[in-house]
Amino acid sequence: MPRHPRLDPLADRYAARTHGMKTSEIRALFSVVSRPEVVSLAGGMPAVTALPLDAVGSMIGELVSGMGAQTLQYGSGQGDPRLRERICDVMALEGITDASPSEVVVTVGSQQGLDLVTRVFCDPGDVVLAEGPSYVGALGVFQAAEARVRHVPMDDDGLIPEALEQALLECRANGDRVKFLYTVPNYHNPGGVTLSEPRRQAIVDIADRYDLLVIEDNPYGLLGFDREPMRALRARDAQRVVYLGSFSKTFSPGLRVGWVLAPLAVREKLVLATEAQVLCPPSLTQYAVARYLDTQPWREQIKLFTELYRERRDATLESLDALMPPGTTWTRPDGGFYVWLKLPNGLDSKLMQPRAVNAHVAYVPGIGFYADGSGREHMRLSYCYPEPDQIREGVRRLARVIEAELDLHSTFDAVDTGSFRAVGRPVPTHTAETLVGPANSDRSEDPRA
Amino acid sequence: MPRHPRLDPLADRYAARTHGMKTSEIRALFSVVSRPEVVSLAGGMPAVTALPLDAVGSMIGELVSGMGAQTLQYGSGQGDPRLRERICDVMALEGITDASPSEVVVTVGSQQGLDLVTRVFCDPGDVVLAEGPSYVGALGVFQAAEARVRHVPMDDDGLIPEALEQALLECRANGDRVKFLYTVPNYHNPGGVTLSEPRRQAIVDIADRYDLLVIEDNPYGLLGFDREPMRALRARDAQRVVYLGSFSKTFSPGLRVGWVLAPLAVREKLVLATEAQVLCPPSLTQYAVARYLDTQPWREQIKLFTELYRERRDATLESLDALMPPGTTWTRPDGGFYVWLKLPNGLDSKLMQPRAVNAHVAYVPGIGFYADGSGREHMRLSYCYPEPDQIREGVRRLARVIEAELDLHSTFDAVDTGSFRAVGRPVPTHTAETLVGPANSDRSEDPRA
Ligand SMILES: Cc1ncc(COP(=O)(O)O)c(C=O)c1O
Ligand SMILES: Cc1ncc(COP(=O)(O)O)c(C=O)c1O
Repeated sequence: MPRHPRLDPLADRYAARTHGMKTSEIRALFSVVSRPEVVSLAGGMPAVTALPLDAVGSMIGELVSGMGAQTLQYGSGQGDPRLRERICDVMALEGITDASPSEVVVTVGSQQGLDLVTRVFCDPGDVVLAEGPSYVGALGVFQAAEARVRHVPMDDDGLIPEALEQALLECRANGDRVKFLYTVPNYHNPGGVTLSEPRRQAIVDIADRYDLLVIEDNPYGLLGFDREPMRALRARDAQRVVYLGSFSKTFSPGLRVGWVLAPLAVREKLVLATEAQVLCPPSLTQYAVARYLDTQPWREQIKLFTELYRERRDATLESLDALMPPGTTWTRPDGGFYVWLKLPNGLDSKLMQPRAVNAHVAYVPGIGFYADGSGREHMRLSYCYPEPDQIREGVRRLARVIEAELDLHSTFDAVDTGSFRAVGRPVPTHTAETLVGPANSDRSEDPRA
Repeated sequence: MPRHPRLDPLADRYAARTHGMKTSEIRALFSVVSRPEVVSLAGGMPAVTALPLDAVGSMIGELVSGMGAQTLQYGSGQGDPRLRERICDVMALEGITDASPSEVVVTVGSQQGLDLVTRVFCDPGDVVLAEGPSYVGALGVFQAAEARVRHVPMDDDGLIPEALEQALLECRANGDRVKFLYTVPNYHNPGGVTLSEPRRQAIVDIADRYDLLVIEDNPYGLLGFDREPMRALRARDAQRVVYLGSFSKTFSPGLRVGWVLAPLAVREKLVLATEAQVLCPPSLTQYAVARYLDTQPWREQIKLFTELYRERRDATLESLDALMPPGTTWTRPDGGFYVWLKLPNGLDSKLMQPRAVNAHVAYVPGIGFYADGSGREHMRLSYCYPEPDQIREGVRRLARVIEAELDLHSTFDAVDTGSFRAVGRPVPTHTAETLVGPANSDRSEDPRA
């Protein structure tokens, strides 16, 4: 029964949440960005080639031949018990010593963990507090839940406790239902900053005073360059903090194994929610991670990863120091994958992007990391994937693009600084910027943001 | 900051949808059911031990050693292009010859596919039409979306078109927003029946006349015992049918690889929704399925599976014929995993369950398959997992339990028949039963329902 085709004959029957989902203009650039001549400082893909692929391959092969029936069969919604035990061992490295495997739910990456937590807690219109900027994938989850995001500013020491308290008071005054604070305390994506030790306690104290639930999203916690892992927020408050973990950055993102650690009552809801969503996480990938933790030198592998990322971080910062035009500022991460850069003179990173791609360098424009359209002057640079030489070449190209933009805009004379430590050539000033607002869904060029 | 612990200190802040999620009393029986002395006719676990585990193991091992960087890295939200091509080949077996890989989204099992479709279309309060009984996992999805389920009756030829039209008219009269019909046309879970050829056309015609979207959930279509696969609804209407497929029953459920085939505009929404939910499906499992389809005799393996299931179906039906007390009726599946049984004299399958478990046999009570508490006299028997001898023993035990119940209830004299062909010893009568209503979330003993 062919009909006259309309553009989308079903356009009138989508759910409300679906109308908020927008295809990113950045994703449209993806095919360009993945051309070999382009240095991509855009993606957040871990350097999996540094894994011992042969060892991992034969380990997984033996797994299937040896215990195939289990690796290929349905499993429990909560996830493999043996893996949940090993996950508790991993969390102990960040001071979480009281976690029980029964409080852990294995998820399809920590992305699914965040989606489950959000589904369990958020009705449309509820408010979520989140750093500004914030992880783009989290903004997508909140938008799909029709939650409103209120950004809380950060500085070089991470989320600012006073700003959090201020936000809570304002929400209270507005009658907003704040469901939780979503925070990435370690090597923030995209901010590159880490929550300081005193602030950790301050935030837990605020959570207690305001009866605030905290979602601690921590995929990068073990990827510090200079120090032991910091003590998790969850290690300080087991009742008020729901912790999200992931093997994506410490082992492999392609296995999609993450987890949630939550108080038992919440864990029970999460299991029901995940059963309705995916029945159970893949068995094969869960067994692969458990076996990897059991038989491979995973701590040494993490060390190897961090050495590699440190080198790339160094290449990034050295090049930025050497090449960026005056007025450009950026953060100095001591772990993780990302530098957050602020353009000089009010330049707009999104408008600049096509020219950058023409010059064969790619980044993610800052607006993708805000729910309210802020971030135009910012960009995220990822140093996790390209080799140091590529990084240096990429930063060189980027510096040239920015310089050309400055020339173009030389009639303008705006001087502007941000809240992050300015490490560019000019002497910076510090101004806290508060950035607040409802959902948009600008996304990076691919889901690996 | 320890507080006086309450039962669930967060009880007041869950989302509305979360309050509808209930832990199943059946899941509580799980540990009992999985005791070796219990014959479980409850679970829907495929017979994965019939797979060539060594071959699959070395295939997957080589995959990782050979192309590890890709198998362990993030992939695209829509799924691996090569796999999507092979998925189109698989669907061609059911007459879907016009599908393009660009219309396919790979999902974490077809469960996630259904969740995504439901999220994209359903606002709270929207109505979903579904067979009565219906797949328990689908009811969980609809409940999580706060959609209302209106059951449409089936008989031995599947969904009854006149009843569908009736339901649509009633919904129209009520002002209900019907978002779609969810249907399992082949070897229905739990009904065991298959939609007849003429009814397929009738349902597509109704969909066209009423501008109805149809979600065709088809995990069992290639598992017919006696005939070639039937032509999919999607093969008859590419615009109005969204098709869900799965490798869980034809290859392995533990890999969690399913898919959605949808018109491009819908597909685009589904990709945005899955990116917000899991970023991307696991790469390793997608490559494993693609490689399996490329290098292993998968059609022969499906034949082997169906022979094995046919034997088990035979054992089930022969035992039922021989042993069930008068008044008991059941369906006669010619494919798939399930028999839908109706107890005599108004017996209640859920009340009877503890006694069945005591007698070392397990089934899923019928109420789990209705959103409105119907189904008390029914139960689902799965023959997919136990060996024929176990099945015979299980049915023997079940027959004894039913007989004992009948003795117990012998004061009652109710005679009752259902809409399914009665194949028990007594002469049946046919009465169509219409079963309608809103959500409950009674679930089977584990997610593998
Ligand atoms: C802060 C943050 N949270 C969560 C994720 C998602 O990771 P996963 O691969 O575990 O879903 C990422 C990935 O980049 C991330 O940066
Ligand atoms: C009718 C039906 N749909 C969907 C599913 C879910 O299958 P998958 O493993 O692909 O998520 C099942 C599993 O039993 C089923 O019976």
